[in-house]
Amino acid sequence: MSKAKGYAALAAKAPLTPYYFERRAPNKDDVVIKIAYCGICHSDIHQARDEWGGAIFPMVPGHEIVGEVVAKGDTVTKFNIGDRVGVGCFVDSCTHSAERDVDLEQYREGLVLTYNSLERDGKTPTMGGYSDHIVVKEGYVLSIPDNLPLDAAAPLLCAGITLYSPLRHWQAGPGKKVAIVGLGGLGHMGVKIGHAMGAEITVLSQSLSKKEDGLRLGADHYYATQDPATFEKLKNTFDLIVCTVAAEIDWGAYLSLLKIDGSMVLVGIPENKVPLAAGALIHGRRSLAGSGIGSIKETQEMLDFCGEHDIVSDIEMIGVQQINHAYERVVKSDVRYRFVIDMASLENA
Amino acid sequence: MSKAKGYAALAAKAPLTPYYFERRAPNKDDVVIKIAYCGICHSDIHQARDEWGGAIFPMVPGHEIVGEVVAKGDTVTKFNIGDRVGVGCFVDSCTHSAERDVDLEQYREGLVLTYNSLERDGKTPTMGGYSDHIVVKEGYVLSIPDNLPLDAAAPLLCAGITLYSPLRHWQAGPGKKVAIVGLGGLGHMGVKIGHAMGAEITVLSQSLSKKEDGLRLGADHYYATQDPATFEKLKNTFDLIVCTVAAEIDWGAYLSLLKIDGSMVLVGIPENKVPLAAGALIHGRRSLAGSGIGSIKETQEMLDFCGEHDIVSDIEMIGVQQINHAYERVVKSDVRYRFVIDMASLENA
Repeated sequence: MSKAKGYAALAAKAPLTPYYFERRAPNKDDVVIKIAYCGICHSDIHQARDEWGGAIFPMVPGHEIVGEVVAKGDTVTKFNIGDRVGVGCFVDSCTHSAERDVDLEQYREGLVLTYNSLERDGKTPTMGGYSDHIVVKEGYVLSIPDNLPLDAAAPLLCAGITLYSPLRHWQAGPGKKVAIVGLGGLGHMGVKIGHAMGAEITVLSQSLSKKEDGLRLGADHYYATQDPATFEKLKNTFDLIVCTVAAEIDWGAYLSLLKIDGSMVLVGIPENKVPLAAGALIHGRRSLAGSGIGSIKETQEMLDFCGEHDIVSDIEMIGVQQINHAYERVVKSDVRYRFVIDMASLENA
Repeated sequence: MSKAKGYAALAAKAPLTPYYFERRAPNKDDVVIKIAYCGICHSDIHQARDEWGGAIFPMVPGHEIVGEVVAKGDTVTKFNIGDRVGVGCFVDSCTHSAERDVDLEQYREGLVLTYNSLERDGKTPTMGGYSDHIVVKEGYVLSIPDNLPLDAAAPLLCAGITLYSPLRHWQAGPGKKVAIVGLGGLGHMGVKIGHAMGAEITVLSQSLSKKEDGLRLGADHYYATQDPATFEKLKNTFDLIVCTVAAEIDWGAYLSLLKIDGSMVLVGIPENKVPLAAGALIHGRRSLAGSGIGSIKETQEMLDFCGEHDIVSDIEMIGVQQINHAYERVVKSDVRYRFVIDMASLENA
């Protein structure tokens, strides 16, 4: 066992505060990671505030974790002391092997999330990345390419893979017209990654306020969805729409922007059900689909892709003491485009 | 011009009555068809009652038309006098060539429906198959395989292709588990065709009242959706679900029956929008899609497939005088599984 220091929500309505807890002694297949940076994902806030129900308190959030290997178990072969590594949304799954013996494990039963979840023993709550170190099975640890700055790479572990996976699965690439709905933490990664894949990228944002940014990030076109003319003009345009917003928008209106056989993929989760007309799918044999994060194998593939294309997140760095203020700003979409916590600041917390 | 006799709705609330009208003299690329039989599709009723809006009266419904070529224009090469032919849901489209120069024309602008639509001139209402003859461009006329009885083949032109197209597109076949939701005019064609394609077919019906029928038609399994245990038992089971019902069912509950990457395809159109949770799609990367009829090319492919596999509809034959009573029974789902009108009965009407 080792003493860990972090920031935790002690209850649903409580601000996050400094918190001491135990990490397990490394098992033979575990890696001990000194956490350098951790991104703030909107889902951290939903869970810390118990907005999705079933939250486990005290809760140390954080699943966009990067750092350095400082110790390892006897059988660990993938990593050495000093390696730059990351941990994403889950730390165990239905696959027991360090080599992935199943793919798509993120969609299967038995996933152990990085925080707000229970270890395989069914008893021990997992604790996330708003902390000084973490102990994780090597099979769930990712390698961060050498050329990527560690701080801005942190959000790749959730925001990056959340967009990479549907863009890859629905074959974004040369000759494909892809729309990204929403230019936030998720959307800005979609623009960068989709552009690097060679697709023609259109951002569909409420207003044109971030248009310059969108084009700088790699978008070819930028339209305001508050302008009804946008929906008339872009009818039947896209092969793929990836919708990153959690607002309850009219999915039917967006489906009408797809070509025949086009797909719209949801990666954001609106709080309530959204009414949908069957005709919006039948006309043009369109599909509405969903996608959630990615497998460990695909997450490593995404990191390597980002390494090749020099893709990281646009971040705003904060000290851990500013978490509660940062949460307020995330809720108001007031960040371009992802907060990352510098864990060195924990020493003064 | 030729005098035609049929049955028409003269207004939205009126029962169908005998009706005389003109068919155009055949153009050089037209085929004149003496109609032997016409199926009754539920959409005939929706349109004759103006339940979808925009109905054109007087309206002669009917788009499951089979009969015999009795005359043809000078340039017609696909058909000869005496050929057994069919006409489905549309009689013109964006493609002008007799050979199909585009596919998926059913999803494109410019479709001229067989009735309740306007000819290319934008003025002349089209009149459907509840009539003694029809004049149609050869490119929109289908060949009925010799071994299929003409009467029971009529429903293939709409119900048959409506199920064949999604089953083919989403690759129903050996090793695939396919559910058909609803065992009516559409559903029973789905069971027959899906079974012939080699898929393992499960019928999901409200109750078990038609179970024996379902198994006789080719289903491997049959479950009642009014039993909550069905949804527990069949979780994560299907590669494909084709939903033929127009009732507002909980799509999310059905989506949970799909495997990872499974698709549920809607071919029925509920009157109202249906509330859907994004999570039902994100968990398991599932898709909800729609499909509408099929192209002319695919409709001929379907007819040839049905010829090879001896597939026709299970029908109940009526005289044209019984149409209004038959409509009432269709609305109550009281037919196994499709009414077909014997057009010879028009002589006494």
